[in-house]
Amino acid sequence: MTVDGPLSGVTVIDLTRVLAGPYSTMVLADLGARVIKVETPGGGDDSRAFGPFIEGKSAYFMSINRGKESISLNLKEDGDRAVFEDLLAGADVVVENFRAGTMDRLGYGWEALHARFPRLIYAACSGFGHTGPYAGRPAYDVVVQAMGGIMSLTGQPGGPPARVGSSVGDIVAGLFTAIGVGGALYRRTMTGEGMKLDVSMLDCQVAILENALARYFASGEVPGPLGTRHPSITPFQAYATADGHVVISAGNNALFATLCAALGRPDLARDARFVDNPARNANTDALEQEFEAILTAQPTRHWLQVLEEAGVPCSPINRVDDVLADPQVAARNMVIRAMDPVAGEVKMAGNPIKMSAYPDPNERPPAPELDEHGPAIAGGGA
Amino acid sequence: MTVDGPLSGVTVIDLTRVLAGPYSTMVLADLGARVIKVETPGGGDDSRAFGPFIEGKSAYFMSINRGKESISLNLKEDGDRAVFEDLLAGADVVVENFRAGTMDRLGYGWEALHARFPRLIYAACSGFGHTGPYAGRPAYDVVVQAMGGIMSLTGQPGGPPARVGSSVGDIVAGLFTAIGVGGALYRRTMTGEGMKLDVSMLDCQVAILENALARYFASGEVPGPLGTRHPSITPFQAYATADGHVVISAGNNALFATLCAALGRPDLARDARFVDNPARNANTDALEQEFEAILTAQPTRHWLQVLEEAGVPCSPINRVDDVLADPQVAARNMVIRAMDPVAGEVKMAGNPIKMSAYPDPNERPPAPELDEHGPAIAGGGA
Repeated sequence: MTVDGPLSGVTVIDLTRVLAGPYSTMVLADLGARVIKVETPGGGDDSRAFGPFIEGKSAYFMSINRGKESISLNLKEDGDRAVFEDLLAGADVVVENFRAGTMDRLGYGWEALHARFPRLIYAACSGFGHTGPYAGRPAYDVVVQAMGGIMSLTGQPGGPPARVGSSVGDIVAGLFTAIGVGGALYRRTMTGEGMKLDVSMLDCQVAILENALARYFASGEVPGPLGTRHPSITPFQAYATADGHVVISAGNNALFATLCAALGRPDLARDARFVDNPARNANTDALEQEFEAILTAQPTRHWLQVLEEAGVPCSPINRVDDVLADPQVAARNMVIRAMDPVAGEVKMAGNPIKMSAYPDPNERPPAPELDEHGPAIAGGGA
Repeated sequence: MTVDGPLSGVTVIDLTRVLAGPYSTMVLADLGARVIKVETPGGGDDSRAFGPFIEGKSAYFMSINRGKESISLNLKEDGDRAVFEDLLAGADVVVENFRAGTMDRLGYGWEALHARFPRLIYAACSGFGHTGPYAGRPAYDVVVQAMGGIMSLTGQPGGPPARVGSSVGDIVAGLFTAIGVGGALYRRTMTGEGMKLDVSMLDCQVAILENALARYFASGEVPGPLGTRHPSITPFQAYATADGHVVISAGNNALFATLCAALGRPDLARDARFVDNPARNANTDALEQEFEAILTAQPTRHWLQVLEEAGVPCSPINRVDDVLADPQVAARNMVIRAMDPVAGEVKMAGNPIKMSAYPDPNERPPAPELDEHGPAIAGGGA
């Protein structure tokens, strides 16, 4: 069931649902961990019901739960609790993304688990964390994107609000959780002891505000959305072409001179308005006018060829179908498949951590049916 | 210099510059690793020159390089190469974010290093990875955001392109790199052997496309930007109020009924157009009209109070200054400080991985001056 990787031999008991937690345990499974998904009897993970469906199975669920096993257990029922506790006794890590307090009410809070299973690592990934005034509140991706500030930085100046088009509120929290688990596993090889990790989606949004925070602390000015521009690098944006856009960036003077020459306007690199990055940054609109006067004469494809030949960082604005057709994406094995017994071949994103010590298989084990592995696991197969 | 954490005792030799790599090693330093930043003599990390500045020091550089040491070495000069190789001999991990091929040309490619230092973990974080037709091409955040598809999903339907307002092209690659390093460290406790990690910014963008990929594979329809809406959950967006917006989400019928009752329109939960999530998702515009007719009568602050009392997930669209004033952000210690000898107190985002086994200090060690630790390290202090 598992793939071969640096976490081979590690067993993760996975109580998570929907996205942040399951994304985290998918990353752990991609690195070789055995992930046993403990689901509620009846429906299991809510995301099994999220469309769209392939042969009645959620494409979303299948893509984020590949390579995991499933057992359904009712943690309020004695027999199932005994099975669950047997699983914990043999496990290295338990991950959950309930609201704060849920595990305590089940009798499986950190203190209780640590007393019984001192080697067990406990990772909680919740909306707001297990402490503070919002602990216990529910969260969704769009809520933490709004509360954490990234929404205020995304979109057009003066325009309507825009959410980041993938669920970075969940996903970034899943990534930080996986980082914490790796650190805790490493530490345990020396101390023999587990620890609790408490990761909050909101905290993780604050952690990725990056230059917006630095700028605010340095200047007191509140940053806002900038379309595709960067606050302190010019050129660094999408420019209009005859048939769409081309993204161009040049972070230093040498690259800017190369860019201007490639566009047939070497004089622009000597123009006082554009002579260095601070000057260009103060004249972003003027530079856009100059560049678009040139770029709108030819289609995007033409400019990509010109700029790639010159070695200037550039890109089309790829739609999802373009991404999947990109030769680099294919060469890097970033579109993989799983053979689902019901849905057939299901394609999904690959593992972006390429490792010299392990193969990077194009086919990964599929996501489990609800309780698919329950009988084997509960019967002592774990 | 280091903080206490699960990676205490781990030494990271850090050749990275600007953002993706330095973000990765910042996360490792936050977890207790000793990070020795090897910088080029003269200017060092390019981002030391990125504004805005506090007392002449880059706020950006200081925020992403806290808790690291610095030594300046010219890796083309024999004496400095000897120092560098001594550092590698005592290190656990080397991280670099050069273009593919740079380390090979320096004689420090994976094969060469692995032969000499078999326990050393080698982590490369580059724009496009070390394989494939784009290997060796330069990248910037905006380029991989455009090429990897997230830009096509962000912004308003039919509107101009929008970049995610923080550099998730870099940051997500830094997070996956840190995950890989943790896995490789854990594996080495069993095998005694290092490995190479090859993480690309573009690959990482593909890895976070999430439901956009699943939808495309399931339906063949190419997803586009949706403002603040979710493709398959309604309500899940920003709604206009009397003085701004409020973000509201309710992913199931019980929460939707609670929401409608809180807005004084319990009938909406029984309206055939809104009776379950698929119906609501097919009538997103109609629901927006109904909700905004109510919500625009009062300011955001009023609705937040009403919805929080009812237990409905909601949020204002916080600007950066609002984020920093949020009581939950403060309670979670997500704004920390470093005392810089020149710039004084510098504030920055905290570590979102909260650990039971370690304190979460509000003050972290500052970022180093260029070559600040060079004499001690080169003199045998390492």
